[in-house]
Amino acid sequence: MNKPLKIAVAGLGTVGAGTMKLLFEQARLIERRCGRAITVTAVSARDRNKDRGVSLEGITWYDDPVTMAAAADAGVVVELIGGSEGVAKRLCETAIASARHVVTANKALLAHHGTALARAAEGAGVTLAYEAAVAGGIPIIKALREGLAANGVNRVYGILNGTCNYILTVMRESGRKFEGVLAEAQSLGFAEADPGFDVDGIDTAHKLAILASVAFGGELNFDAVYIEGIRNISPLDIRFAKELGFRIKLLGIARMTEHGVEQRVHPCMVPLNAPIAHIENVFNAVVADGDFVGTTMFEGHGAGAGPTASAVVADLMDIARGCSTPTFAVPAEDLEALPAAPMERHFGAYYIRLMVLDQPGVFADVAAALRDHNVSMEAILQRGRAPGEAVPVVMTLHETEELGVVRMLEKVGTLPTVVEPPQMIRIESFNQK
Amino acid sequence: MNKPLKIAVAGLGTVGAGTMKLLFEQARLIERRCGRAITVTAVSARDRNKDRGVSLEGITWYDDPVTMAAAADAGVVVELIGGSEGVAKRLCETAIASARHVVTANKALLAHHGTALARAAEGAGVTLAYEAAVAGGIPIIKALREGLAANGVNRVYGILNGTCNYILTVMRESGRKFEGVLAEAQSLGFAEADPGFDVDGIDTAHKLAILASVAFGGELNFDAVYIEGIRNISPLDIRFAKELGFRIKLLGIARMTEHGVEQRVHPCMVPLNAPIAHIENVFNAVVADGDFVGTTMFEGHGAGAGPTASAVVADLMDIARGCSTPTFAVPAEDLEALPAAPMERHFGAYYIRLMVLDQPGVFADVAAALRDHNVSMEAILQRGRAPGEAVPVVMTLHETEELGVVRMLEKVGTLPTVVEPPQMIRIESFNQK
Repeated sequence: MNKPLKIAVAGLGTVGAGTMKLLFEQARLIERRCGRAITVTAVSARDRNKDRGVSLEGITWYDDPVTMAAAADAGVVVELIGGSEGVAKRLCETAIASARHVVTANKALLAHHGTALARAAEGAGVTLAYEAAVAGGIPIIKALREGLAANGVNRVYGILNGTCNYILTVMRESGRKFEGVLAEAQSLGFAEADPGFDVDGIDTAHKLAILASVAFGGELNFDAVYIEGIRNISPLDIRFAKELGFRIKLLGIARMTEHGVEQRVHPCMVPLNAPIAHIENVFNAVVADGDFVGTTMFEGHGAGAGPTASAVVADLMDIARGCSTPTFAVPAEDLEALPAAPMERHFGAYYIRLMVLDQPGVFADVAAALRDHNVSMEAILQRGRAPGEAVPVVMTLHETEELGVVRMLEKVGTLPTVVEPPQMIRIESFNQK
Repeated sequence: MNKPLKIAVAGLGTVGAGTMKLLFEQARLIERRCGRAITVTAVSARDRNKDRGVSLEGITWYDDPVTMAAAADAGVVVELIGGSEGVAKRLCETAIASARHVVTANKALLAHHGTALARAAEGAGVTLAYEAAVAGGIPIIKALREGLAANGVNRVYGILNGTCNYILTVMRESGRKFEGVLAEAQSLGFAEADPGFDVDGIDTAHKLAILASVAFGGELNFDAVYIEGIRNISPLDIRFAKELGFRIKLLGIARMTEHGVEQRVHPCMVPLNAPIAHIENVFNAVVADGDFVGTTMFEGHGAGAGPTASAVVADLMDIARGCSTPTFAVPAEDLEALPAAPMERHFGAYYIRLMVLDQPGVFADVAAALRDHNVSMEAILQRGRAPGEAVPVVMTLHETEELGVVRMLEKVGTLPTVVEPPQMIRIESFNQK
């Protein structure tokens, strides 16, 4: 039997404690599958005396995780602290500088500093592994870098945030408003006390930037991600979506276009015949279109102690087996700065909802705005009549460039008969290849 | 740059030619991702002069693939001939005996001889890779062996045959009968001239036996797979399925039960809220339930030149990178002969359709048979009335042991008012974990 792989774990929150628990409970299985054991030799966390349900006996304690990264008797440092700056970043840099492999679940860190960290790691001859950072338990990084490695991928997209997907699922099933469903999700532990990272789309954007880099072989470019969250999705939109044969999902979408790489996070109208429309509750899913393999989809839990620990330990098992692959699919020194496609050049279909006063002449004004901006209507829906009061009017637009739609909506928003800011949700069509 | 990985390809049919095409077109991408090129140095096929759309210039031709496996200037032999016996088997054995890695898409060979081949390969220190053998382009073997390696898996199931899924999809959408849809699928090239391997469930069973071995760490046990195909699914069953909130899918299901490993292939009634119900047309999907990761699903193309070549080349790229994992997830010498659960002990719910004469007293006889076999009805449906003629009566049964259902149906089948052999389709419920 080969020597055990010694690891040091920084951060013993939900994921850290879950990782320790998995390593302990599955020790025999891991050893059979890797040909060697994985042993925790050092840990670091905030409070040494907190009961986490895992034994720390025989494990060296470090108050400072950065010191641990430099000094521990371990070939791998597992970073489960989180945050794009500060201690998590210093700890990874220190581990790499001292020729230790790094396994992390930290999407914010990678989204902001992934290219530099990958170059440092590959330069030092160590692995920077991060399966747990994107879509939790779904082995999507492995799938893109290895399973689909023979393909050029020109589009990758997914439901990357379980909190948002849960909220949208409950809103659809119950007809309730965003605020109430969010509050309930918070009380159930499905949403953070500070929900902004999730519901404003930032978490999805971090993960999307990582996926785009792996898929396209480009440097990470988080600043180029266009981001909208789900706060302004109303029960009305969900009702109209149903009527039109759509479900509303918060998607992260990265695509190679003639204008460069498009990276965008926003609510989408997804047709019911697309498999991703049926991913509900806290589940995540990622779809990749490869030039030889066609369309593939991967679904599973995107968060939680068990799924995240599953991904962290899979990375450790790869290291234990001596398997390594370039961090972002091609050697980090070859990662190219890919041009970013501006959002105004996005080409797609649109759902528009206007709240208009129910009086003669309204349609003529709206129709004129569409004509003036060269935007073409596919269908229009109006339900209910309430003379003199505000009623919803819903239009779907044929595929067109975003800039024209934005300008048209600016104009429509100024009409005296349009009493609320117009709602616009992009329609995505995902033909399976 | 490292030395190229030299490979010999046996079989230049659709998949073999597709693999050559991929290796040629993606040569630069493969070299960037692996750090070395993959070069075809030898090929063998039936007809040297056939135009396959790929250049064989500079490649050594062998009339006999087994000779090639022993003598070619190549570290890897790619077996794309097919068949569980004969030349494909000899060629793999020869390659292994001469210390060459083997990459194969041959599910029949693995289902019948996988354990012995794996032991030979691991004994010789070479890789036996077979991603393309199960679910084509979906990297499910890699997912189970590596991405989910930290998990114990107690159930794995899937839609593993695109031909059957296509036929069932078209039957549902069109209301047409099996025979006509099969004939059309044959004319479109979605079904073989001899469709038995596909529509009788054998191809699915080959793949299931492989999945079960990887998931449970057991020896392959193809003979223990219970197999039913889709020939006797009628438009009536599809209509009732719709009414009851189900879709009919041919699934392969492997599960650890208290009675041993259950491996079964048969049509299933799948509830619409299960994501696998929405996998349509030629697409495949595999679901694995892991003890830490929960439920994960992988979807994509299960056949065709591009998807299969994608999987073959992914295996080659792993070999080029020096990554290897035990063939069936644990060392082949440790694979255990797992006890097989008998089908009579299967515990589940059932859909039953009887064609009965529409006359008084029929229900009483059927109800007595249920009572006598301790089988409990959940719901009953009868549509239409035609006094004195045969009408369908559909029942769903509560979860029970299969033996009682079989005995009950034997009895019911002998009733004079039941004019056709009873139809029985198992109902599967897949709660996502």
